[in-house]
Amino acid sequence: MEREAAKLLDARDPLARFRDRFSHPDPELIYLDGNSLGMLPLRSRERLREVVDTEWGAGLIRSWNAGWVALSQRTGDLLGSTLLGATAGQVAICDSTTVNLYKLATAALDQRPGRRVIVSDLHNFPTDRYVLEGIAAQRDLELRLVEFDELSGPTPTALDAAMDADIALVCLSHVDYRSAAIADMAAVNAVAHDHGALVLWDLCHSVGAVPVELDATETDFAVGCTYKYLNAGPGAPAFVYARRELLARARQPIWGWFGQTDQFAMGPGYQPQPDIRRFLAGTPPVLGISLVEEGVRLLAEAGIDALRAKGVALTNLAIDLFDEWLAPLGFELASPREAAVRGSHVSLAHPEAYRISRALIERENVIADFRGPDRLRIGPAPITTRFVDVWDAFARMRSLVETGAHLGFGADRAAVT
Amino acid sequence: MEREAAKLLDARDPLARFRDRFSHPDPELIYLDGNSLGMLPLRSRERLREVVDTEWGAGLIRSWNAGWVALSQRTGDLLGSTLLGATAGQVAICDSTTVNLYKLATAALDQRPGRRVIVSDLHNFPTDRYVLEGIAAQRDLELRLVEFDELSGPTPTALDAAMDADIALVCLSHVDYRSAAIADMAAVNAVAHDHGALVLWDLCHSVGAVPVELDATETDFAVGCTYKYLNAGPGAPAFVYARRELLARARQPIWGWFGQTDQFAMGPGYQPQPDIRRFLAGTPPVLGISLVEEGVRLLAEAGIDALRAKGVALTNLAIDLFDEWLAPLGFELASPREAAVRGSHVSLAHPEAYRISRALIERENVIADFRGPDRLRIGPAPITTRFVDVWDAFARMRSLVETGAHLGFGADRAAVT
Repeated sequence: MEREAAKLLDARDPLARFRDRFSHPDPELIYLDGNSLGMLPLRSRERLREVVDTEWGAGLIRSWNAGWVALSQRTGDLLGSTLLGATAGQVAICDSTTVNLYKLATAALDQRPGRRVIVSDLHNFPTDRYVLEGIAAQRDLELRLVEFDELSGPTPTALDAAMDADIALVCLSHVDYRSAAIADMAAVNAVAHDHGALVLWDLCHSVGAVPVELDATETDFAVGCTYKYLNAGPGAPAFVYARRELLARARQPIWGWFGQTDQFAMGPGYQPQPDIRRFLAGTPPVLGISLVEEGVRLLAEAGIDALRAKGVALTNLAIDLFDEWLAPLGFELASPREAAVRGSHVSLAHPEAYRISRALIERENVIADFRGPDRLRIGPAPITTRFVDVWDAFARMRSLVETGAHLGFGADRAAVT
Repeated sequence: MEREAAKLLDARDPLARFRDRFSHPDPELIYLDGNSLGMLPLRSRERLREVVDTEWGAGLIRSWNAGWVALSQRTGDLLGSTLLGATAGQVAICDSTTVNLYKLATAALDQRPGRRVIVSDLHNFPTDRYVLEGIAAQRDLELRLVEFDELSGPTPTALDAAMDADIALVCLSHVDYRSAAIADMAAVNAVAHDHGALVLWDLCHSVGAVPVELDATETDFAVGCTYKYLNAGPGAPAFVYARRELLARARQPIWGWFGQTDQFAMGPGYQPQPDIRRFLAGTPPVLGISLVEEGVRLLAEAGIDALRAKGVALTNLAIDLFDEWLAPLGFELASPREAAVRGSHVSLAHPEAYRISRALIERENVIADFRGPDRLRIGPAPITTRFVDVWDAFARMRSLVETGAHLGFGADRAAVT
């Protein structure tokens, strides 16, 4: 595979023009960590200026009625209709993924009184496991962590084998944060529903990267973050989805004034909103949600099908280069080979993955992501990454490990997804 | 009282120079709603540009280790040491006031197993009441809402009369959002502690306006928002305080990865941080917390004693003008006359308060705050308000009501604190 071939893919890429919609203060940097923190859209910088200077600085308190009050739901509806397959009134932007998991898991469990088990993936993302562990401890329930095969994820068959009539809630990630294995949402939902359980999906590594159809798959609840593929900035607020049929009776545990019907009457007694706003709690982070709106608009303009097609092509290229250059150097593929069940990142295992990741950053100006104990995650966000970036990054990895140059790097071990 | 007298007060005001540290796109606007949403500090605009362009845009994922990971606690420590009388490790910036109330109230109740009552103020801010109502419903506890005198707030004597041995938690606002009555934190804490209860304070209308001494008053838990007197922007993240002696065993309900010891090991089993970070949950909102840091720096530079002195002088002026001009027009003072027990806003009751508030905004370019059913809240934030602003606003209120011009205004009724 020659570099010219990658350049040709870029020349034919219908999304190539989107690269210029992002800030590139260091044009030489190869950023393959869009699955941890997305890049800065230029339009978001402008939007922030408008929100800060005009809406806050000039509008002051008047801006609440001029638009801020409706921002959580308006942005949720936009996200739902463009990237989640969810009709209006079921998605809102609020709080963090962790807080939202807590709210939805609690609401789900309240729908299944008497059942005493929560099922999740033994290797689910830590905050998901911790939240469920905490809820199980408080409610004296069992958290049953099932070890699914990393490369196939929680298949319907594997889940079915773990199900019984005592399971209230199944909480899983749609795309595995390690391997990028994609779960079959519709089939998993059907299995859980057959056993009378509800399902809560974590879409952090899916939203904006792979098509999601929440309504059509009969998903019950979902959460996800916006700072990865949606490019809404560090610690941007997350989203919640609750299926319309469940909304009328699903109550979240944190009763706050933004979840209250007729909020500004400020009356006695909590009466939750009829729609997804009942999952709001406190005053929404206006700056953060505004950047979510910009991020979603940008991805919606590119189109999820085009983004998915490019994500497949980029990771296919990565796997081809792995086969040709890296497999002989002791790397192993830790993601599915089959594109249809692989999200937009590729994991490679190598005993020196940490040193390699440090050498890539410090010497090669390539940012990929290390995940302990031995994983290098290559996350080429479709909207910002060129095929030639993948080619160059893999060429440098090959050269690093061939020469042993990576062995001089690596001390502390910290990273944020 | 002549306008010249107000101008003289401005000429002698040691904080007058701080007005120029804020954005004034409309220099004629008189903004008396700093107790709902603080104004935009110029330095915050710059800081946001740095965080967005440099830390996010250029630094990307590297910025987590370069500073973002420590931001919640660093900013909490700064806030604690400059405005809350709290030594390091007890304050963090995270989530919303509502979510933080939920976390702390739950943690407090877990410390008093067997006790079945939560006490709060019947007229406490709605989100506080709703959160406690929700917790009481979930835990099958009693929420006992005590009607304290609005002008004296929850006095130690009144609270003592409501206490019994079944009360686990007392949750009160330090400064009443309606009347601005200041509670005696040390004495209230002592009363609650004498009865074996813990106390959770809402400092939303205190922080940055009146001195707070959390350590010295033996406060157990506190929350507060940063978008009022701290000028951190719409929906900016809130703060939590937990007393050092309680931290080791106090557990919050939302177990997330930012509360986890050795977070990036991403290991099995939740082990909370030893300090206030155990009250963090999800990924912190970096842009929001950065603006909290700038807001706190600005107030710390002005100094809480100088801010408090000016707050007293501004509200004294407002009350003098009320006596002279507005009392004869049917207004009533709904705040304490005694400055020592009054926060930085003044409430006036008038049957046409809503129409007056609309006429002030739409015709007089004066923003004050309406609170149902009949209150006008005048919130002259000490760091941004001139004495002449108060004089002008009151002169216009007098003129409006004398001429009946306010009767042509007022339709919808929405406002956000």
